[in-house]
Amino acid sequence: MFSCKSTTTVTSSLLRPRVSTSTWRPRRQWRYGRSFATSSPRLIAVTEMTERDFAALRINEKRLMSDLHATCEWGKGERWGDGETDIGMSRLSLSDADKQARDWFAETTQSLGCKVTVDAMGNQFAVRPGTSDGVPVYAGSHLDTQPTGGRYDGILGVCAGVEMLKTLNDNWVETSYPVGVVNWTNEEGARFPKSMVSSGVWAESIPLEDAHNLKSVIPANDTATMKSELERIGYLGSTPASYKSTPMAAHFELHIEQGPILEAGDRRIGVVRGVQAYKWFTVTVRGRDSHTGATQFRHRADALLTASKMIIASHKIAHKHSALASTGILTLKPGSTNTVPGFVQFSLDIRSPRNETVDEVEAECKKAFEEIAAGEDIDTGSAPSERHCSVEWKTDFVSPATFFHDDCIKCVQEAGNDLCGQGEVKDLDIGAWGKFMTSGAGHDSVYTNKRFPTSMIFVPCRDGVSHNPAEYSSPEACADGANVLMGAVLRYDKLRAGRGH
Amino acid sequence: MFSCKSTTTVTSSLLRPRVSTSTWRPRRQWRYGRSFATSSPRLIAVTEMTERDFAALRINEKRLMSDLHATCEWGKGERWGDGETDIGMSRLSLSDADKQARDWFAETTQSLGCKVTVDAMGNQFAVRPGTSDGVPVYAGSHLDTQPTGGRYDGILGVCAGVEMLKTLNDNWVETSYPVGVVNWTNEEGARFPKSMVSSGVWAESIPLEDAHNLKSVIPANDTATMKSELERIGYLGSTPASYKSTPMAAHFELHIEQGPILEAGDRRIGVVRGVQAYKWFTVTVRGRDSHTGATQFRHRADALLTASKMIIASHKIAHKHSALASTGILTLKPGSTNTVPGFVQFSLDIRSPRNETVDEVEAECKKAFEEIAAGEDIDTGSAPSERHCSVEWKTDFVSPATFFHDDCIKCVQEAGNDLCGQGEVKDLDIGAWGKFMTSGAGHDSVYTNKRFPTSMIFVPCRDGVSHNPAEYSSPEACADGANVLMGAVLRYDKLRAGRGH
Repeated sequence: MFSCKSTTTVTSSLLRPRVSTSTWRPRRQWRYGRSFATSSPRLIAVTEMTERDFAALRINEKRLMSDLHATCEWGKGERWGDGETDIGMSRLSLSDADKQARDWFAETTQSLGCKVTVDAMGNQFAVRPGTSDGVPVYAGSHLDTQPTGGRYDGILGVCAGVEMLKTLNDNWVETSYPVGVVNWTNEEGARFPKSMVSSGVWAESIPLEDAHNLKSVIPANDTATMKSELERIGYLGSTPASYKSTPMAAHFELHIEQGPILEAGDRRIGVVRGVQAYKWFTVTVRGRDSHTGATQFRHRADALLTASKMIIASHKIAHKHSALASTGILTLKPGSTNTVPGFVQFSLDIRSPRNETVDEVEAECKKAFEEIAAGEDIDTGSAPSERHCSVEWKTDFVSPATFFHDDCIKCVQEAGNDLCGQGEVKDLDIGAWGKFMTSGAGHDSVYTNKRFPTSMIFVPCRDGVSHNPAEYSSPEACADGANVLMGAVLRYDKLRAGRGH
Repeated sequence: MFSCKSTTTVTSSLLRPRVSTSTWRPRRQWRYGRSFATSSPRLIAVTEMTERDFAALRINEKRLMSDLHATCEWGKGERWGDGETDIGMSRLSLSDADKQARDWFAETTQSLGCKVTVDAMGNQFAVRPGTSDGVPVYAGSHLDTQPTGGRYDGILGVCAGVEMLKTLNDNWVETSYPVGVVNWTNEEGARFPKSMVSSGVWAESIPLEDAHNLKSVIPANDTATMKSELERIGYLGSTPASYKSTPMAAHFELHIEQGPILEAGDRRIGVVRGVQAYKWFTVTVRGRDSHTGATQFRHRADALLTASKMIIASHKIAHKHSALASTGILTLKPGSTNTVPGFVQFSLDIRSPRNETVDEVEAECKKAFEEIAAGEDIDTGSAPSERHCSVEWKTDFVSPATFFHDDCIKCVQEAGNDLCGQGEVKDLDIGAWGKFMTSGAGHDSVYTNKRFPTSMIFVPCRDGVSHNPAEYSSPEACADGANVLMGAVLRYDKLRAGRGH
């Protein structure tokens, strides 16, 4: 059985400086508030690191995976295989399990010499000082999961950030400016139904009050709000949730691809250029409750049959535009085997790399849904009805297409080239997705990018599966990603120092 | 405001014998266990009643509606109009509101001189003695409703039975054999998901233990079973739930049509010849949870998109066979806007007057669903996928076509002729539904018909709407039905006496 204790063991061993095999020179005394009783550490400044130095600095794959799986003891989900860690995750944001993962994050980063700040959305910012004071460069992602999620989405990004801190400490690397790791709250939007809500508040794109008042949708009938749950688990921080209070020099996020492109192309690293545009809607269909046995088709206003047609129509319209349309939630009333439902509500998620395409799909769906509700669609073989449904749209969320910062993309690309060799990353020409990748999913990096330079690193995951217990990335893929994350953060630190800010 | 007190007032007034305007002769002293201090009642024996006597005996429409609406104070649902009683019902079986309605039924029928028996399924049998001992003729229906039901489905049948008892008492009518009224438990199958379960146990078609172990599906997360709820509200009776313990000479059920045929044909009474065959299934579709943004259509196994196609396919197949197919329940997992659902379960209700047609629709749906799950259906405009879903069927309930008893049908027809005139009922030729009507919905009469002569009476309801708060039958229609119900019961009593049993 995989035990949580392993975390402690691994963490403790980090406090012992190790002799590096690289050629880094000591420069000055280690100045963080920790006591190293023995040995004379040799410090190395990032400003003075050559490409060869960068290439020699590598994270500890075994320790990274050990940390990742140890944290996954909190909020375990469904088992999907026979292996020790073949178990999914169900760590809903601000749950007891999420609190345990947060506590681990705070304790671990503090033990590594970081100062940890918690803001009013529970975002945790752990900062390791640099030679000079200044705004930190962050590696960030999230520790919450979907209700039937896996071990890599979000968790890998945070654990890789922590592993970066451990590696910098091990190797006495001194950055010019502070570097940090962020754990963003409720990125998934699963428990509190707004994804990336806490980086959204931080970016001042979402009002704090709206976010605090979000009600839990899982478990059912829960009356908790984000604010009440933040208070309950002790993570309602005193720092304002704002980029003004916790600014960033840059934000890098490592994530599993959540799609099959890297795996299909046998690529180790994806340099992410941006994030797809998407919109979320709630569609309400109103018909008429009626008896399934006594009401002939021509007298029905069947809200579920109508919603089924709409779901299929949205799929076809999106397919025509090479976009995506998906329904993840559907509820109906009254919910009895022998009553035709008179009320159906469903979510609609439309995505495309282009804002215009999302708008086109939305407009075509609106037209098609109206026709379907009114019985005007020509659907061969369906029974006509004298009675019709009504349809109503509510826009829940709009996330325009995101284009990451060239400096950040360049740092990721260089770190990727370092790890894999020039050709591996540089020639990543992946069909419709352009020379670099576009993320299909939203990430906290969408919001950090609104305020500060940002980019992302993708690593392959098996079969492109994500938001599923069986989500899996190999230890090698996770280590690749963590190495590129660290490489990008250090290169950005060097870039800043070179530019004198 | 409509008050419950009115019930008590109406009930009490019944205890005063009234002077009849008919020509009935007193025959012997009233022998029921109630004290009538004043007046010398004139009794009339059904055996001696002529058609003219039957025609002179009419229920009290105002009192019937007063009773019906008074009982609807318990378990009120959604308001749908401005009128005092324009409010739907939500009286789930064995709820606190259902207990109040049951208590009313027991107290009222006892005060009318009935003996009330409760069996192990909570079925209530109220029996008014006849001149001779013997097995009673019953009028029966149910007092429970759908979660968003109306005031007439089931409730009218029971209230009309009670009104029959009051009218017999008022007019000192003496039947040859006992007559009774039944309130069957959980007919709707809404809270405990098996419709007509308690008449089914009584008919020994459903094992008692299976019924007792049925779990509540409304409200969500309820852990109650039928047995625990029967105990909780004090309606777990000591009489075995069996037709052997509470046999019937015959069973008549008045019900709103729950369809538009009578209204469309401007008919007051439907003589019901039988009940459609139907089967209930639970269909489970398993795909794969995946991210809505990162998973392109060709990599998805979208259980909801697949289920939507199945629902539409079942509709088309049923339509082709002039049958009905309906889905009233659909649940999915995991239920998050940005996760393609990997699991969907839905109910499928297939109906036709012919058993063979139900079987044909079932077989065609099974074939079609397999093809849809495997992605083999040709669906123009849909994105193909490398990944497929699986589909699984579970048969929950089979109710073969029911053909009611000729004697009972004849009694209903004669009572209908009496009320409306010969042509009104005799020439009721209603298209595909045959000379008489077939009920689209299942009723407790399906089970009573398995053991004893049975038939039903339909009255029109507005727009054919049922299982809906706005379900409505006019006071005149309700009174018509109650008059035919009483007329049929008395004619059957006379028929028995004439045959000497």
